[in-house]
Amino acid sequence: MNEMEKTNPLKIGIVDTTFARIDMGAMAVDELGKKFPKLPIKIIRATVPGIKDLPVECLKLLSSGCDIVIACGMPGKMPVDKQCAHEASLGMQMAMIKSGKHIVEVFAHEDEGKDEADYARLAQDRVRKHAVNAVWMCRFPEELRKRAGKGMRQGRNHVGAIE
Amino acid sequence: MNEMEKTNPLKIGIVDTTFARIDMGAMAVDELGKKFPKLPIKIIRATVPGIKDLPVECLKLLSSGCDIVIACGMPGKMPVDKQCAHEASLGMQMAMIKSGKHIVEVFAHEDEGKDEADYARLAQDRVRKHAVNAVWMCRFPEELRKRAGKGMRQGRNHVGAIE
Amino acid sequence: MNEMEKTNPLKIGIVDTTFARIDMGAMAVDELGKKFPKLPIKIIRATVPGIKDLPVECLKLLSSGCDIVIACGMPGKMPVDKQCAHEASLGMQMAMIKSGKHIVEVFAHEDEGKDEADYARLAQDRVRKHAVNAVWMCRFPEELRKRAGKGMRQGRNHVGAIE
Amino acid sequence: MNEMEKTNPLKIGIVDTTFARIDMGAMAVDELGKKFPKLPIKIIRATVPGIKDLPVECLKLLSSGCDIVIACGMPGKMPVDKQCAHEASLGMQMAMIKSGKHIVEVFAHEDEGKDEADYARLAQDRVRKHAVNAVWMCRFPEELRKRAGKGMRQGRNHVGAIE
Amino acid sequence: MNEMEKTNPLKIGIVDTTFARIDMGAMAVDELGKKFPKLPIKIIRATVPGIKDLPVECLKLLSSGCDIVIACGMPGKMPVDKQCAHEASLGMQMAMIKSGKHIVEVFAHEDEGKDEADYARLAQDRVRKHAVNAVWMCRFPEELRKRAGKGMRQGRNHVGAIE
Repeated sequence: MNEMEKTNPLKIGIVDTTFARIDMGAMAVDELGKKFPKLPIKIIRATVPGIKDLPVECLKLLSSGCDIVIACGMPGKMPVDKQCAHEASLGMQMAMIKSGKHIVEVFAHEDEGKDEADYARLAQDRVRKHAVNAVWMCRFPEELRKRAGKGMRQGRNHVGAIE
Repeated sequence: MNEMEKTNPLKIGIVDTTFARIDMGAMAVDELGKKFPKLPIKIIRATVPGIKDLPVECLKLLSSGCDIVIACGMPGKMPVDKQCAHEASLGMQMAMIKSGKHIVEVFAHEDEGKDEADYARLAQDRVRKHAVNAVWMCRFPEELRKRAGKGMRQGRNHVGAIE
Repeated sequence: MNEMEKTNPLKIGIVDTTFARIDMGAMAVDELGKKFPKLPIKIIRATVPGIKDLPVECLKLLSSGCDIVIACGMPGKMPVDKQCAHEASLGMQMAMIKSGKHIVEVFAHEDEGKDEADYARLAQDRVRKHAVNAVWMCRFPEELRKRAGKGMRQGRNHVGAIE
Repeated sequence: MNEMEKTNPLKIGIVDTTFARIDMGAMAVDELGKKFPKLPIKIIRATVPGIKDLPVECLKLLSSGCDIVIACGMPGKMPVDKQCAHEASLGMQMAMIKSGKHIVEVFAHEDEGKDEADYARLAQDRVRKHAVNAVWMCRFPEELRKRAGKGMRQGRNHVGAIE
Repeated sequence: MNEMEKTNPLKIGIVDTTFARIDMGAMAVDELGKKFPKLPIKIIRATVPGIKDLPVECLKLLSSGCDIVIACGMPGKMPVDKQCAHEASLGMQMAMIKSGKHIVEVFAHEDEGKDEADYARLAQDRVRKHAVNAVWMCRFPEELRKRAGKGMRQGRNHVGAIE
């Protein structure tokens, strides 16, 4: 961390949806507090109706000073939901390219879970790990560098590198 | 609401299509009046032929001062209609990223309805709920915040959070 | 119409392709003359090889002063043709968002027709109706407004509103 | 041709790939010389590894003064190749919209050919016809105008207009 | 090479992911050293969590002076992984069009490999060959030119030109 980073808190946006069925945003906040208790972090939260509303909301937060945004969504299992998730993800790419900053997309697809409990566990694991990734990208890139090619997974257990 | 918001009416664009088979735009107007009788709202309406004409029309309204636009469409059930809806949705993402403002996309797909009556109910439920969402996003974000992860649905009943 | 519109002719671009098998552009010109005999309209025509060449040609016409462009194409029935049509349509969205003006996309897909004669009828019906839509969007938006949600169709008969 | 066009040579970029299995770029050059022996044409050539590298290379050539670019590619027949071709084509649309100039995309898909010899014939026919199209778009638009709706094909024989 | 190129080192960004299961970035670095031992190359490395984080990271490196970026990813075999790879690739196109510079996308799809060992060989072959391509594009374009249409492959053996 350079001098400016020590004095200026890291500004992290967290955007979630009312469509989601788990409070992923709160989990991200909780994880950031637990894993980086001494790091000055300023969290800006926002909630939008659905995943297609995420990209421009993320862009607004990035434009108004956030260093990074964590975008949480829980797409349903119907074909139309898949389509929406795809469109939202492309919107996210557009927002990142426009702002020149990262958005950590944390989507937990309903059909990834075997049942509701499994789905909830997967969503929680994914959002907590990605909250850490967000901080690493902004302040501790060496943490990511040393895990390059290591088969890290969010949502399920890490699979590891191919020997 | 800050002082400017108290004196300046909320400017909401509502764009619909001649392709649609229900007057979703009128329902949105009706809902805004019912749910926010005391909020100064200025509604700007426009109608385009089909859903692929929506994105640039929304952009024009956003560029000329609208705070948000509600875009209503009723894509048909043929593969070509699905394709059109997808292209329109991506155009909507482009318009949002360009303008930095929200477009609430209210698409009711014909094959979501069991029959015409069911389709009409679904379209009505969806547009009315999203009209409220549009106002919440602009003026009452706390209403969305407290519903984060609560499984809200537009078109059908809310499914609720996973316990 | 305001004063400027009375004196300045409406500038309409019409772009078609050599790939198409019907002279849709000529039909559009014919329809504009029949339906709006007294409206000063300046038509600028251009022809490109295929549908993927349409978006930037439309953009060029919009950039050089056209108020709107009618883009005519007749995608084939092979999977690769469908893919091209999709890419062309997305290019059209990009061109509209960049220019802030409408492009009326008039695509008649080969597999929409039962046979060649039916295909030709469909293409003709679609381009003639959309030529009218183009003028309505620029000069007579009230004509579209009163048809909102009325189930208008181009290519086939109107299906009407759901009662 | 106006005065400037008579004195300034037409600058045509030709970009091809090392992935391709036929030297389509050389065929384009050959065709330009045969069909327009008296037209001053300056050809700028570039080769990239694969089709996804084409869009930005085309953009670079357009930005540095080319009037038009012919982009040659030979996508394979595997699903991943189809996906790449689609992504490359969308990149091409982006490059055209950004530059406001045409890119003539000449893709010959491996599964379009019945066998290698047929594939080679198809690729050659397509690139030669499109090389001519490129010149027509820049300098002889009337050649395209008179072929509007005539069912022109590149790669196979023209199919002609529907009577 | 011109004078400036002789004195200024070639700046190559290499971005990889923690999701990948092989250290492709290290292989790229190794290959650059082996194949171009005398060429002054400055390598800037970065690691992101997954492939959808690659485009904006590449853009940041290109914006801060890299001449080219090699983007390494290893998409999984599930449909959602395919979707992610597609979205990442489109983001890559956006980043290239925005920056006007090349990104060499080196994706090794898990289902391209017959087993883990084959997958690892494929990934290694692909990244090493593309590392060379990156240098050729920036400094030795004649190397690519002479291989135009020669059926070069990365990941598997070259297939050669069609005779």
